[in-house]
Amino acid sequence: MTNDLPLSKEQILDTAEQVLKRFGPDKTSVVDVARALQVSHGTLYRHFASKAALREAVTERWLDRIIAEPLAALADLPGDSAADRLRQWVVALIAAKRTYAANDPELFKMYADVTLEAGGMIEAHIGRLIGQLASIIASGIASGELKPADPEETARAIFIATSKFHHPSHAREWLAERAEREFESVWRVLLNGIAR
Amino acid sequence: MTNDLPLSKEQILDTAEQVLKRFGPDKTSVVDVARALQVSHGTLYRHFASKAALREAVTERWLDRIIAEPLAALADLPGDSAADRLRQWVVALIAAKRTYAANDPELFKMYADVTLEAGGMIEAHIGRLIGQLASIIASGIASGELKPADPEETARAIFIATSKFHHPSHAREWLAERAEREFESVWRVLLNGIAR
Repeated sequence: MTNDLPLSKEQILDTAEQVLKRFGPDKTSVVDVARALQVSHGTLYRHFASKAALREAVTERWLDRIIAEPLAALADLPGDSAADRLRQWVVALIAAKRTYAANDPELFKMYADVTLEAGGMIEAHIGRLIGQLASIIASGIASGELKPADPEETARAIFIATSKFHHPSHAREWLAERAEREFESVWRVLLNGIAR
Repeated sequence: MTNDLPLSKEQILDTAEQVLKRFGPDKTSVVDVARALQVSHGTLYRHFASKAALREAVTERWLDRIIAEPLAALADLPGDSAADRLRQWVVALIAAKRTYAANDPELFKMYADVTLEAGGMIEAHIGRLIGQLASIIASGIASGELKPADPEETARAIFIATSKFHHPSHAREWLAERAEREFESVWRVLLNGIAR
């Protein structure tokens, strides 16, 4: 049973996300998604040339929705010190990763796999996050609260130095009891490193 | 063809390491190691109750030899500033990981797998490394070069904050051209965070 109405990219991604979530990324085929959309797999392949391309597009949209957009809103909030806003941003990043690792394990697993495979898309996502961090840092440098430094380089350093708490390859370590204490230790050194 | 001479643990680990290196950790069975030792697999199982236990013991010895022992020598060296010695130690850790990832891929892969499975042994290994870092930090605090702080907590923070450069789950990222520059950015913030 197929229909011939034109498919929007959003429609395909909505359905693909649901199917991937239900069957898991390893067991989902392009044919499964085509069937759920009631189109031929040929029609779907005209939009996404491979299962890898479809997974990458679903992951990209998912990362925008659960990470990049909520954090952008946080980065733009005025008020508080730059140090507090930096911490809120990083803590929110870590909390979002943990929440989705626990509550949406199929999509999180797909994201972890895509992170190892899809260099360009993940780079762009990280670049967007680092831009948000850099804008908080730049405002802290401008107000004299933080030491003068290149905001983007400093943002990248903080993002990398907190990898253990948000990079999906470390997800198994997030449940350890000492994870909180470890984050506090790392944050103390980083904040001392950038504050005036 | 088997012999009945008593086997030392070292003999077993020497042979197991060679066999694992030759066939790769996934394809090596306990029977392969027993055959290379010319003993029955029953004899070998009396020493190591499972393939996992044998892999863990080989990895533990390998980590001592290629990481913990050479770095201990470095941590004990007098002279230079604490900042220079810290950097030398961390750079040596990173260089050792990269060298073995490139030149000894079978054992490195086993180590990466064991890191995800064998909590206790890896914890002990990391604890030993953090002890070495802490001793350099303690000497820098004593001389007034570094800010007063708990040396072990600071050591753990530095170890964690540099995970991207030495944790085996990140090995694929070590070849990226910008890895050097990223390390310099992270190190700048960390050193600013601990130096007086």
